[in-house]
Amino acid sequence: MLRQNDPREINPQGNGLLKGIAVDPVIFGFHENQLKVLIIEHTNTGLYALPGGYIQENEDVDEAAERILTMRTGLSDVYLEQFHIFGKYNRTDPEVVKKILIGQGFTPTDDHWSLKRFISVGYYALVDYTKTRLTTDLTTGSCDWYDFDAVPPLIFDHQLIIDKALTTLRHNLDQMLIGFNLLPPIFTMVELHTLYETVLGKKLLPPNFQRKMLSLGILERIEKKKTGKAHKSPYLYRFKPSE
Amino acid sequence: MLRQNDPREINPQGNGLLKGIAVDPVIFGFHENQLKVLIIEHTNTGLYALPGGYIQENEDVDEAAERILTMRTGLSDVYLEQFHIFGKYNRTDPEVVKKILIGQGFTPTDDHWSLKRFISVGYYALVDYTKTRLTTDLTTGSCDWYDFDAVPPLIFDHQLIIDKALTTLRHNLDQMLIGFNLLPPIFTMVELHTLYETVLGKKLLPPNFQRKMLSLGILERIEKKKTGKAHKSPYLYRFKPSE
Repeated sequence: MLRQNDPREINPQGNGLLKGIAVDPVIFGFHENQLKVLIIEHTNTGLYALPGGYIQENEDVDEAAERILTMRTGLSDVYLEQFHIFGKYNRTDPEVVKKILIGQGFTPTDDHWSLKRFISVGYYALVDYTKTRLTTDLTTGSCDWYDFDAVPPLIFDHQLIIDKALTTLRHNLDQMLIGFNLLPPIFTMVELHTLYETVLGKKLLPPNFQRKMLSLGILERIEKKKTGKAHKSPYLYRFKPSE
Repeated sequence: MLRQNDPREINPQGNGLLKGIAVDPVIFGFHENQLKVLIIEHTNTGLYALPGGYIQENEDVDEAAERILTMRTGLSDVYLEQFHIFGKYNRTDPEVVKKILIGQGFTPTDDHWSLKRFISVGYYALVDYTKTRLTTDLTTGSCDWYDFDAVPPLIFDHQLIIDKALTTLRHNLDQMLIGFNLLPPIFTMVELHTLYETVLGKKLLPPNFQRKMLSLGILERIEKKKTGKAHKSPYLYRFKPSE
């Protein structure tokens, strides 16, 4: 893991940052038939959270989400979608924020801007698990993948944000076939099938699934086959390029 | 039209309001086969806009949207959904905000909070056109329905917000059958068909449409028929209550 500075750590006055609003990306990966989610631990606190961050004054909200995603994973140009804002007036807890800042070596006064109400813009990202280069900084003790069903207890409403991201992902996966963002460029029908079953959390009959996928006209069968006995090798597919 | 005070007008210092973030509801109605949208004019400016508003410090973002919707239309308990936040760093224009405040009789200083960057949380609402009681206040010269395709030029990115709301509405209408929010409780198949054609902006073959709707098992045919020659009266339907 690389370490790099995070503006939050060296900027307790919040110069150049928007106050009262932050972004929290839910970064999904897929590996060995498990849906994974990226979780950080705030330095010296034992508090786990989404890998969120502040928005710079001269930065679009979408750009902030992209920047944070790239900072944490080393990836750019990945599927990243804003899906909901979390705006309950009491969703954050000043005592928890205080603990996080103290863990970073900074003791805030009671009227510190970061202790006030914060609205969170929720994004979700789909990344190729194998390509990520996870990065911590001085504010984060760890930055790691967790199996979706084994995420530790999280601060604030971060579990709710994950749950809602998964609901959106399921809906979109069903409707818009964005699943290819979680797969390598070339895959077998079994791999595609497993991805759908895992993310949707339900069994899909293989013949029906295969028929549906092929009928959509979005898959391209590759001539090259996997090594092994030729007549037993599964076909390989890829998604047709757009246009 | 009723007139009532708006906290914005009597509160130029923004006491008790969140700074930097506001809500902008796109309120859709349906009348005489036209999709309508609610637009206000800022007093004494000739500037048209969505009927937006600020968020109070002790109010959830969703509650702010509900409050503003009720204030403008007299309706509560209507379909209201947050669909996107608009976060471009330069989406608002301080000169335009200044003009709006001057139109209300308040001249802001150049560093006034309302001239700074504002993020907008977009909501869309579906209301029964016939039940609304539109309300202006001292900040709004008018508050009126416009045909969707005859909306005047709007400030900032408000036209983009409407366009994105319509895209979402179309998608949801197709997927989640939320159209009943735009219809009276009892309706004919022709009325339902017209609603779908109007909102989706495309022709739908009546037999296919009827077959699809009936096959979903969500409609209930009412025994009572419209007055007129009994054998010519169309059947009336309603949506089955949930559960």
